[in-house]
Amino acid sequence: MQYQTLLKTELHDVKDLMLRAINQIPSEISQAISQLVNRGGKQLRPSLVLLSCNVCNAPADKALYAAAAVEMLHTATLIHDDLIDNASTRRGTNTLNAVYSTAATVLSGDITFAIAARFAALSDNVMLVKKFAQTLEKICQGELNQMLNGHNSIPTVSEYFRRIEAKTASLFSLCTESGAILAGCSSKESDNAREFGYNLGLAFQIADDVLDFMGTENRLGKPVGGDLKEGLITLPVLHYYQEHLNDPRINAILEKQGQPEDIRTLVADLRNSDAADWSMQQANLLVEKALNLLKTNPATPYRHAMEEIARFAVQRSF
Amino acid sequence: MQYQTLLKTELHDVKDLMLRAINQIPSEISQAISQLVNRGGKQLRPSLVLLSCNVCNAPADKALYAAAAVEMLHTATLIHDDLIDNASTRRGTNTLNAVYSTAATVLSGDITFAIAARFAALSDNVMLVKKFAQTLEKICQGELNQMLNGHNSIPTVSEYFRRIEAKTASLFSLCTESGAILAGCSSKESDNAREFGYNLGLAFQIADDVLDFMGTENRLGKPVGGDLKEGLITLPVLHYYQEHLNDPRINAILEKQGQPEDIRTLVADLRNSDAADWSMQQANLLVEKALNLLKTNPATPYRHAMEEIARFAVQRSF
Repeated sequence: MQYQTLLKTELHDVKDLMLRAINQIPSEISQAISQLVNRGGKQLRPSLVLLSCNVCNAPADKALYAAAAVEMLHTATLIHDDLIDNASTRRGTNTLNAVYSTAATVLSGDITFAIAARFAALSDNVMLVKKFAQTLEKICQGELNQMLNGHNSIPTVSEYFRRIEAKTASLFSLCTESGAILAGCSSKESDNAREFGYNLGLAFQIADDVLDFMGTENRLGKPVGGDLKEGLITLPVLHYYQEHLNDPRINAILEKQGQPEDIRTLVADLRNSDAADWSMQQANLLVEKALNLLKTNPATPYRHAMEEIARFAVQRSF
Repeated sequence: MQYQTLLKTELHDVKDLMLRAINQIPSEISQAISQLVNRGGKQLRPSLVLLSCNVCNAPADKALYAAAAVEMLHTATLIHDDLIDNASTRRGTNTLNAVYSTAATVLSGDITFAIAARFAALSDNVMLVKKFAQTLEKICQGELNQMLNGHNSIPTVSEYFRRIEAKTASLFSLCTESGAILAGCSSKESDNAREFGYNLGLAFQIADDVLDFMGTENRLGKPVGGDLKEGLITLPVLHYYQEHLNDPRINAILEKQGQPEDIRTLVADLRNSDAADWSMQQANLLVEKALNLLKTNPATPYRHAMEEIARFAVQRSF
């Protein structure tokens, strides 16, 4: 991918910052978190931070800290999410909770949050720290809402979008807005940058939800049908359900009672339906909206790399 | 207590800030966290922040945010600690993990961290946010160290002090230094203020460790002998052990194999030994050191309230 070439040095520096901080953690846990960071192949979130900083001419050292903060925050949420979902595989390797106790996994996530907060503070920008904290709050709110209310009934499309906004679009918005914040751009520029990340984040999550049944375990680094197993009704499943009302498998899944056979056959039926195509149409519309928001920026390699990421978000197989 | 009268309005405002933020959390969890905050009777940490801000003439609105940040951070660590220790009672009521799932408890702690980070950012002081993040990192480091290495052998006295520094003194230092940070005091003044909190924090934790077997469940709001049950060898137990080498009950406790009867008899024997007196001598020396550090400050009601807290730390029964 072009953005990885363009940002090669900076992405290397960001990873170096993260790994050095993780190295301070007591040894066993340190290795496990390093592995998780090292296997985060796409590095989309730190790349979006770095691109947005380059577009706005934000100070280079602050950009590195902001990128590291966002990636550490994302890593921390993955550690706690996997514990909460009892997931055993992430990025093609064991989750922390699969290897360590609940106690050690909780603390590993907490210390990763702490490192993220330190990096955010090292950006020396109070506004960025505020947005950073608000984003973490929003992510947790979304997860708690889903946990407390999400498993009783099929969500509406609007509930689905509220959920993925909290889960993914909020952090993507922070990534793409961070350059404008660090460079002190106008509020119009900040709004545009944030909106770009927001639409991109929604599209990215829809594509992720489609990959849950269209992808392969090998490419995804986690089992196929994981969302269904977790009782998560995503946009493609919602669409499928509207055309197959009262499918007993979906009701079973909603109550986390889905049997492996139910999930296997539902994955097959979803693959044979128009659920993926219909959902990807929605994702593509969001990407178009995102790309339009970039048009006011000068046509630099950084803008082109952002466009590349936006297209990749909906064309990827992992 | 005099400090509570002196800070009545400010402590009320701090609690109001916290409860309004907690109110945004999905309802069930919101109530549980509010209860935890409402039952935090002593409010020592936010009081130390407010006193240090008053001593240094830090801006009043920033002081409220810093105090709320510290108390929310403390609350978040209590939520995760109780989950980790599988504790069922805190502040005289059920812990979150006793009522809710592991997943909901992890997220409750996370969202409380997020609110704490937002309050820290609202202090509009990047240095404070950095120290805040470093403190969280230190607390987590300490807990991970204890978890990974703490249960194999009797700790040395120096290991004990390293542990309580991370667990308690680091946050107390942040509290007492925050006024100097927010007011932009000289580094000499900052150092003094931090050292005061550091010594006070160590003394406070030693007294806490003594209360674990000298206190009553009714006054403590949690069961007597909780540390022993958890396999935690504290200063008084270390002292007792040096005089009763190879007491099989202590070895059993170290491996978390202590039976209720072992814990009951050991509590009785500790109460009859000089373990409490000897440990409180150490705590008193630390308080003296802390009080000496205050002598350069003008003799205002705020300094007197700090002195009162320092004395209370080692004279309390709860």
